[in-house]
Amino acid sequence: MQGTTYLITGGTSRNDSGLNLKKQDIMKEKEIRLQLLDEAEIRNRTQRVAEAMKTSEIDYLLIGDNVNLYYLTGRVFCGYVLMGADGSLHYWLRRPSTLSGEGISSYRKLEEMLSEVAAFTSGCRIGLTLDDIPFSTITRLAKGIGIAPSEAANASAVMRTARAVKTPLEIEKLRISGIKQAQVYKDVPHLYQPGMTDVELQIEIERALRLAGCLGSFRCSGAEMEIFMGNVLTGDNADTPSPYDFAMGGAGLDPSLPVGADGTLIRDDKPVMVDMNGNFTGYMTDMTRCYVAGHAPEIAEKANRLSADICRAVAANARPGVAASALYNLAAEMAEAAGMSEWFMGHRHHAGFVGHGVGITINELPVLSPRSRDILCKGNVIAVEPKFVIPGVGAVGVENTYIVGPEEGAECITVLSEEIAQLN
Amino acid sequence: MQGTTYLITGGTSRNDSGLNLKKQDIMKEKEIRLQLLDEAEIRNRTQRVAEAMKTSEIDYLLIGDNVNLYYLTGRVFCGYVLMGADGSLHYWLRRPSTLSGEGISSYRKLEEMLSEVAAFTSGCRIGLTLDDIPFSTITRLAKGIGIAPSEAANASAVMRTARAVKTPLEIEKLRISGIKQAQVYKDVPHLYQPGMTDVELQIEIERALRLAGCLGSFRCSGAEMEIFMGNVLTGDNADTPSPYDFAMGGAGLDPSLPVGADGTLIRDDKPVMVDMNGNFTGYMTDMTRCYVAGHAPEIAEKANRLSADICRAVAANARPGVAASALYNLAAEMAEAAGMSEWFMGHRHHAGFVGHGVGITINELPVLSPRSRDILCKGNVIAVEPKFVIPGVGAVGVENTYIVGPEEGAECITVLSEEIAQLN
Repeated sequence: MQGTTYLITGGTSRNDSGLNLKKQDIMKEKEIRLQLLDEAEIRNRTQRVAEAMKTSEIDYLLIGDNVNLYYLTGRVFCGYVLMGADGSLHYWLRRPSTLSGEGISSYRKLEEMLSEVAAFTSGCRIGLTLDDIPFSTITRLAKGIGIAPSEAANASAVMRTARAVKTPLEIEKLRISGIKQAQVYKDVPHLYQPGMTDVELQIEIERALRLAGCLGSFRCSGAEMEIFMGNVLTGDNADTPSPYDFAMGGAGLDPSLPVGADGTLIRDDKPVMVDMNGNFTGYMTDMTRCYVAGHAPEIAEKANRLSADICRAVAANARPGVAASALYNLAAEMAEAAGMSEWFMGHRHHAGFVGHGVGITINELPVLSPRSRDILCKGNVIAVEPKFVIPGVGAVGVENTYIVGPEEGAECITVLSEEIAQLN
Repeated sequence: MQGTTYLITGGTSRNDSGLNLKKQDIMKEKEIRLQLLDEAEIRNRTQRVAEAMKTSEIDYLLIGDNVNLYYLTGRVFCGYVLMGADGSLHYWLRRPSTLSGEGISSYRKLEEMLSEVAAFTSGCRIGLTLDDIPFSTITRLAKGIGIAPSEAANASAVMRTARAVKTPLEIEKLRISGIKQAQVYKDVPHLYQPGMTDVELQIEIERALRLAGCLGSFRCSGAEMEIFMGNVLTGDNADTPSPYDFAMGGAGLDPSLPVGADGTLIRDDKPVMVDMNGNFTGYMTDMTRCYVAGHAPEIAEKANRLSADICRAVAANARPGVAASALYNLAAEMAEAAGMSEWFMGHRHHAGFVGHGVGITINELPVLSPRSRDILCKGNVIAVEPKFVIPGVGAVGVENTYIVGPEEGAECITVLSEEIAQLN
């Protein structure tokens, strides 16, 4: 059960010592174990990975990126895990040297470690995380295990497929993130003061999230997608396209990080969209709510209601076996029927999706886009974000995170009123 | 001069509209230009890159990672820059499509863009950022320009070498970061309340940094080094080794991000080390100061004074032409002479360096380590951090950022008292 003990953390106020409880749980003697997951949880995960390996005819995966190490062991460390298609796991540890456990070899030089790996993998087909690790590192890994880089299969694709279906423990972590994120979003009106800019409100939300236990780090797949703690957008800034395939852009504060809040004053009657970091457990929920000081324009209210309706319709249809593209089409058709297509998923830049898997990173499978080939499975956890950018008004819309499984439709885990909430 | 206008920003209080000023400067018509640097600044940078290209016999560099795009243009976008050894620059833009300027081609499909690149580079030796971009992307780039991946030269090494010597504009940005970071560190005692944990104090420092204009994002070179906004360490947590080659570790709050503050109560007479994010301008300074509620133990005072003395000695000797390894040795010898070797740069884990270049990322060249081959140059900007971890006491030490150049020794740009400051 050791894999679950550190989930039992306190509430959201700074004085209930939630952070301390959490720490003490981790710091018990278990803290020194490299493998934090219990046997049943490891089996849940390795079975899924092994299935994907068999489909791709891969004998071994060599995993060394933080996201996939965390998936396979429940912690981040500096080292590698070798997984066989039979579910076997071997660990090579560089840092911290204080970790221990069965099947762990320590190493200092990468090439030493790789010669030990090669003893297992010789003559077998091996997968490396080609989408997650720099070219130089993959080249060095391949050389060390005696294959040409072009002979390596793509372990990134295998791990992405496996991670798309969450285990019960992962779902539990996502539920906790959803509850905590919703609690902070509920308090946003108390964080607002008239005269604030978008950045100033964002900073207060960042603080509230962190005090509630948010870890801060915002993991994205794909090296070039950079974001800090999420986005607070108001006014026309929402319509400034960013370098990324987001529905919502924002100029940001600096050309080195050109996304999100840009210092726009929050004006009465202009909606404020809050889409911030839900990483409280190593697993991220994704959630958006809108707020307004004064009164939201009728068109904003209409678009926000439509967004909530689309979320509900998509969730009701998000059953195992349904095509992710069908869910995108459903959303786009509802926007079309309401005469809102022009503003759907952006205005100057239209994002090419209406939802995406979430988990250890913010952008996992399945992808809810027109050309997606993903088919929904029980255990997928998806964020659905039908948003609208209306010139002269700003960005409005709702985003929730859902667990796919129940026959009556996906279950929302970011539960909070979906109306545009009053800031003052 | 457009490259410098957005540097003139306001102070650190939330009411002086510093953030708004900054935004307005960016948002003028210049905002739509892809290339934000003026001609002289571009020449400064491309001359340095071209020199490094010639040394490595490279004809063209194809750059698409955020850090190096930002270096070559002054902004982050989704696209590529092709630089010739003659200093020529061509730009391919995918997003945001709102950018404009001379020599820019738009594209939707990577392969279309690469066929245009190939028209320039055919028969030439081309460098790709092999250390910064995933294997899959490099493979696709190479194929698109008609070479084998193994034929590509390493543009990462070239760019790292070029970026190690800062231009006057870069130094100006680093100076501003240093001033703002020091202002926030000066205010840390006002952020402390008795009964706080390390995390709670860190959250108040994060907020103060952000209100002073800190962009939040903490850029590291190397895919697997993850950190949020920096570290606040107190008590024995400082001696918990992390997965990274840091002098200071810390268990962190969660096994998914096992570094830094872990919820330890800040106790009287236990030093608190603050080593937080100095990215106010796209360029990061690195700075550490220690604080204490009550009285620091004499051994902590002694180690902290020694750290400040080592910083001063290293800075005085950090002149162009000096070997970076000699500066490490100087620091290690001073620790040895004081009988403090056992705790120098860590206790359970000893970091293998005493300083490092800073700039767009927190870990640039030169590296001040025993085996470093780097020779200091005018225009290097280095962080020097001789720290000590004393069992039962915690972490103490000073870190400053310095500009290498003046004959009398490097200039400190993180100016603030180096004593252990009183928290209450």
